[in-house]
Amino acid sequence: MNIKIKNANQLISQTCTSITPLDDSLLNAAQARLDILTKPQGSLGRLEEFAKRMVAITGNLMPEVPRKAVFTFAGDHGVTEEAVSLYPREVTPQMVLNFIHGGAGINVLARQAGAEVVVVDIGVDHDFADAPGLRGMKVVRGTRNMRKEPALTREEAEQCIAVGISLATEYADQGYGLFGTGDMGIGNTTPSAAIAALLTGKSVASVTGRGTGIGDEALRNKITVIQDAIEINRPDPSDPIDVLAKVGGAEIGGIAGLCLGAASRGIPVVVDGFISTAGALIAATLAPKVTDYTFAAHRSVEVGHQAMLDRLNLEPVLDLGLRLGEGTGAALAMMLLDSGLRIYREMATFESAGVSEKND
Amino acid sequence: MNIKIKNANQLISQTCTSITPLDDSLLNAAQARLDILTKPQGSLGRLEEFAKRMVAITGNLMPEVPRKAVFTFAGDHGVTEEAVSLYPREVTPQMVLNFIHGGAGINVLARQAGAEVVVVDIGVDHDFADAPGLRGMKVVRGTRNMRKEPALTREEAEQCIAVGISLATEYADQGYGLFGTGDMGIGNTTPSAAIAALLTGKSVASVTGRGTGIGDEALRNKITVIQDAIEINRPDPSDPIDVLAKVGGAEIGGIAGLCLGAASRGIPVVVDGFISTAGALIAATLAPKVTDYTFAAHRSVEVGHQAMLDRLNLEPVLDLGLRLGEGTGAALAMMLLDSGLRIYREMATFESAGVSEKND
Repeated sequence: MNIKIKNANQLISQTCTSITPLDDSLLNAAQARLDILTKPQGSLGRLEEFAKRMVAITGNLMPEVPRKAVFTFAGDHGVTEEAVSLYPREVTPQMVLNFIHGGAGINVLARQAGAEVVVVDIGVDHDFADAPGLRGMKVVRGTRNMRKEPALTREEAEQCIAVGISLATEYADQGYGLFGTGDMGIGNTTPSAAIAALLTGKSVASVTGRGTGIGDEALRNKITVIQDAIEINRPDPSDPIDVLAKVGGAEIGGIAGLCLGAASRGIPVVVDGFISTAGALIAATLAPKVTDYTFAAHRSVEVGHQAMLDRLNLEPVLDLGLRLGEGTGAALAMMLLDSGLRIYREMATFESAGVSEKND
Repeated sequence: MNIKIKNANQLISQTCTSITPLDDSLLNAAQARLDILTKPQGSLGRLEEFAKRMVAITGNLMPEVPRKAVFTFAGDHGVTEEAVSLYPREVTPQMVLNFIHGGAGINVLARQAGAEVVVVDIGVDHDFADAPGLRGMKVVRGTRNMRKEPALTREEAEQCIAVGISLATEYADQGYGLFGTGDMGIGNTTPSAAIAALLTGKSVASVTGRGTGIGDEALRNKITVIQDAIEINRPDPSDPIDVLAKVGGAEIGGIAGLCLGAASRGIPVVVDGFISTAGALIAATLAPKVTDYTFAAHRSVEVGHQAMLDRLNLEPVLDLGLRLGEGTGAALAMMLLDSGLRIYREMATFESAGVSEKND
């Protein structure tokens, strides 16, 4: 039984309109506090930026170090028929089981960061029955092959976004204060590159990379497949739901929804790498203010990532040559957002520590 | 009473000669393990590099997540007479007290990283008596003004390096497995820039920055002061102890010694920012193999840092616009070295998780 969220279209538009810009007075108040801590002004660089933004996003002048969850959305892709990936399609469900057993990269790094991993089946072509630890929110059993037809119907695409919004709401209600995004889906750099091309205006060739590590010939094929998919489906770049439906994927829609839902609830969201950023780009095209609430976790080695980061005007926290996905970069970056918040909360002031201020 | 380590010169040369190159077979064995974990090969980028190097440095194919200590060496500088800093000289002892009371940036970030902060008075111009939590290993009460005379005698410079070696040995014997370096000393970007110029061959102007935040006029003065100090003292760039003595500082010598001592004991050392890298550069000029054991924590905004990183052939872990020192960047980078090691130790293999490997 697939999930069916009622009035998904209405939920999406209401969520988008409820996202407000950050309050500059909170950013300024946070900087004023940072400037009385025992360090030269501005000397903690981006840690100070992280703290300030967390204050403004949460609307709280002294936010607690937040409870954290990384949402790893899993889905399959019909386009794997076109030999775009190095790995067989059955790896998607196998890795989902690895996630719920705690053995994957995201499990290891989320444990270190103190984050829960929420594994979401939003579009895997496998029946997990009631596997413990898995959130069964399946919208489709894999997308259709976008080289032949739209990957999703518009209704399915809306359902995927609504799933992400619902999860954000659920975890916000439980008191979580920091979200990370993650993905699993053999073949999913292909739809992500298609989205990158359409929403940044760059050529397909310039935003298509090697994914899990394909060679030169397979890369040429992948570019052709994406060009064909765009040619055949003619997605409208001014309509991000149309883009998501025609050349996207279920997990990308879930990520887009999570970003929108987080922003609408005043919760910062750490966007992982290439696939997650494609989701964030869908979200930011629907509701531009969403980027006020997002942090880019890291700069992926996947070539099209930078174009999307530029379009979103986000500077990544980390640059570690990662290209795994799952939310691994998001878990790592969460530790550094915590660092910023801890600095803000815990450092002594010049006055309390009896340290002289600078000469004027 | 100042510290006096016997036969410091001999201790330094024995330590240098006991540093061995890394064993390639260990690097290869570690990569072989990384390649059977459930992820595309190489997809965790620099985390894999960190794990491999930790294996080769420790000589242990399955190293534990290590006990950690950040050593924050504090010293004063006679050159502050020349108005090279924005802050008054008394801030050095005030900040030392802030460190031992737990209120400084390094305390906050070391707590997060699970690292102990070892605060070392190696050259502060203040009598701390027996302040609890402070390692009293004072070699000098501040350096002399290097614009007028050598900052340290050769014997004092050797004592400073020997202090760092002794601390490395002491903490290695206690079972610590990862060291970080840190510094505190009003005025200490001035000697660090002098060391950078002499040991990289770059011009003084190109490696001298704004430190805690001086303006244009003060920066021009700082460059002149450093040029004068080099002119007057004529340090020999092929003799790093001569460089340390004539235009260096006590804390920089302590950091150099810590790097040497760590490498001689097979302990990885995370080098913080500009001042720490000047210390590491002294160490690497004495014993080039020391860089096999060092990780550059972050890319400082201080302009001369990159030239030293290039000379050491080290790529920083982080790039967060930091310029605080104290070991703050080292504490942050330690968390990411742990991430690499945890990935290496904790991830499931393709076989154990029942995940299909890539198509050939």
